[in-house]
Order: sequence, then structure tokens, then C-alpha cells
Amino acid sequence: MGRASKGRAVAVTTPVIVMVRPQLGENIGMAARAMLNCGLSTLRLVQPRDGWPNPAAQRAASGADIVLDQAEIFDSVADAVADLQHVVATTARNRELSQRILTPRRAAEEMHGWIAGGDQVGVMFGPERTGLENDDMVHADTALSIPLNPQFSSLNVAQAILLVSYEWSAWGDSTPAARMSDHSARPADKAELQNLFDHLERALDQSGFLRHKDMRPAMVNNLRALLQRADMTEQEVRTFHGVIKFLSKNKHEE
Amino acid sequence: MGRASKGRAVAVTTPVIVMVRPQLGENIGMAARAMLNCGLSTLRLVQPRDGWPNPAAQRAASGADIVLDQAEIFDSVADAVADLQHVVATTARNRELSQRILTPRRAAEEMHGWIAGGDQVGVMFGPERTGLENDDMVHADTALSIPLNPQFSSLNVAQAILLVSYEWSAWGDSTPAARMSDHSARPADKAELQNLFDHLERALDQSGFLRHKDMRPAMVNNLRALLQRADMTEQEVRTFHGVIKFLSKNKHEE
Repeated sequence: MGRASKGRAVAVTTPVIVMVRPQLGENIGMAARAMLNCGLSTLRLVQPRDGWPNPAAQRAASGADIVLDQAEIFDSVADAVADLQHVVATTARNRELSQRILTPRRAAEEMHGWIAGGDQVGVMFGPERTGLENDDMVHADTALSIPLNPQFSSLNVAQAILLVSYEWSAWGDSTPAARMSDHSARPADKAELQNLFDHLERALDQSGFLRHKDMRPAMVNNLRALLQRADMTEQEVRTFHGVIKFLSKNKHEE
Repeated sequence: MGRASKGRAVAVTTPVIVMVRPQLGENIGMAARAMLNCGLSTLRLVQPRDGWPNPAAQRAASGADIVLDQAEIFDSVADAVADLQHVVATTARNRELSQRILTPRRAAEEMHGWIAGGDQVGVMFGPERTGLENDDMVHADTALSIPLNPQFSSLNVAQAILLVSYEWSAWGDSTPAARMSDHSARPADKAELQNLFDHLERALDQSGFLRHKDMRPAMVNNLRALLQRADMTEQEVRTFHGVIKFLSKNKHEE
């Protein structure tokens, strides 16, 4: 039986993170921070080695106090997952158990499906050195393994929680894969660019840079391609006009 | 000018991680561990606050010593990125600079393309509290921002390095999204399952469980659907035959 059961009446619409026998408070705190970074806030701890609350966890949480304050403590894995319909166990190794193993990305997809269907979902993480035991794993219906460098696959538990939480939040995230940082800046239109090309080429003609008639077309085209590629904003085009104007002026004054 | 330049003659086929003015040795060590977890090993440090080498970094690296031992130290961002053709700057905020901002997933895709084309690629991360300054950002051609909980978006620098490294390694990773953990176990074929159904239904007929003739077809079909869904291995089918046999035997002995 859980000693605390705050919030159980309310359906949780994000995965519950279940840390099984965590050892270091620092890792619990870093896990809480990583969870909240990704919009998760429901943490359950099964037999934390150093008791609870844990000042080292608070320090490492760097402001994610709400996750720690609401964390629930359990005496057993069975109690910690009793109210969940789906439990995913993270494992670094293949065990003797015959279980379905998902990548974090696929697990995120399935968890979104389960939660959209109204189910409660948890993800279990084992102790720092040993990971989950088989006796823990059989409380899960599904396993999850993070594909890593086979020569160096020992992942910190808070880092593992970050990756699973990140995949949860990245799934279906609507952030454009590529965008411009300055939303106020309007991209230049092609007429503005053409004006810039005209200004630049006039200045270059006057300066003598384009004096070789046979090379002029290729030169001009290369410069135009470069400036097209730069995806300039309307403001940057104006700045560039100024650059050309002042460089030309200095040239004349020499 | 870099004080060290080991290995520069050899093209690096993974992104170079550039930590700019990192403060805590712990974070450098955790970053090294996260990098090696994801198959990256080239780390450059610009003006690390506490000098180099740093015992706190070594402790936190948990065995990723090779990354720290080969780390190169630089006096400036310009020197650290001088030999790279593409530099991606990570930023939590939109700056005044007009830059193309990618998600980590898109950045991974583009970096794979650049490296496949023979270019050297780096990813810059700023100091713990402040992140990269604009003066650092302009050494990059591209920016990267990790979509996070807008109410709690302050990500630890080692966690940020993990996420970028993870997306790099996840891109094009061939691990099946879902697989069975026990490779030695052959999935049962449908004839073996049919034998199991026959055995179970015979035993249930003898036990009287299926005595209501009108309910029998639905009962049988529900049990068959459940056992189909379990995706049993050939070994599990044999185990289940034993379960039925022994339960039936005890039944007869009562």
C-alpha cells in the first residue's frame, strides 16, 4: 500500500515515472528536473535507499520542487503500479524473460495511444548499478530499451528518464523542424533582392571589379546565388544597401 | 589557437561537441559520459572555468575517460570551430540574431548529411547559467533549440548534450521499433497454438467449465483470442500444456 496517495482520484494524462530502489538523491532530483523539462510531473519512488524527503534530491532538482513535493513513496513495485493499466519497464539488457521490447520512440507512440484511450501508464526505472530485476520486470507488460553505443551503454538513471520523457514530449510536438529565430523579421521578397543585386552590380561596375566583360555574367550570377541562399530579411537587405553605399563612397574618396 | 590539436589530421565522422566556458566539472564529466553513450567522443572546451584537467569531471564521467583524455582546450570560440565547415549553436531562447533554428531531430538529419558529404561539424553549448552569448552564436551558421516545457525550460547542459547526441545516434538507427527480448525463443506457429486450444478445451469440457452448451462457443472464442494475443513462444506453449495437464490431474484427484 502506498503511504501517500495524493491526486490518485484524478486521471494522470502523462506517464507516471516509477523509480525502483533509487540510491542517490542527486539522481532523483535530476530526474525530477528532466521530467518537468518535458512536461511530466508524476513521480513514484519504491524504497528509496536514503529515505524521503532527501535534501540531495531537492538541491539537484534545480527548481523542479513540485515534482518532488508530490512524489509518492511505495514499499513495493506491486503497490506502485497497482492502479496503472500499462507498465513499461526500462532495461539495458536482454533478460531471460520473453517480453516485447520497444525503442523509446515507439514506446512514446504507444503510451500516447494508451493515454488517449483513458488508461493510466507508468514507466519503471531500476537502481543505479543493477537496473531492474526480473522480479520487477514481470510487473510490466512491455519493456523498453534505449539503443546506445554497445561499447559504453551504461546510462545514468536520470539521463534515461530524460530520454524517455523527451521522446514522450517530442511525439507529435508541433514545433517546426526548421524556422527563423526572429519572428518580427519579414523575409525579403524577390523584388527587394533584385534591387539589391542592381545596386551591388552598379557599384561593382563603377569600382572596376566587373571590368572583364567575358567574366562578368558568371561573377554576377555567383554573387546573386550566394545572396539568394542567405535567405535575407527585409531589414538585412536594407543594411546591405548601406554597406554597398558606404563602401562605394570610401572607394571614391581614396 | 588551440593549445592541443591531437587527431586533427583525421577527419571526424561524428559531430564535435564544443562546450563554451563550462563552469562545473561534474557537467563536463556527465556530458562526456552521455556523448560516449551515443557514440560521440570528440569534445572541445573553450575556457573551462576551473582549468583542465578537472578531477570532478573525471569522477562524473563514470568510465568515459577516453573522451576527457582526448578533449582539446581552446582560448576562444573562433579557435575551437576554425577547422569546421558547419557549426550548430544550441540556444534556449530566441535572440535578436536572425538565424535558422532547428529541432534536435532535424539537426541530426542535417548533420548526418553534412558529414556524409565529408564536412566537419560541431555543436556548441553555452555556460550553465547564461547559455551562449550573441558573440558566440555568430560563429555558428545554424541554431538548435530543444522544444521543452515553456514553464520549465532550463535544461542542464549535460542533459542538453545527451539529447543532441541521442538524436544524432537515433537518426537512421536500425534497431527494430518493437522486438522480442528472447531471441532464442521461436514464436509458436498456429498449429502448435491449435493443439494447445484443443488440449485446454478438452480439459475444460471434462472439468465441467464449458457445460453450458449455448455459452460454449463464445467462451472458447474469448479464450482463443486471449491466447492468440499473448504471442506465445513454442516453449511457452509447452509450459502451458503442462499447466493444463497438472491442473486437470489435481482436479481428478480431489
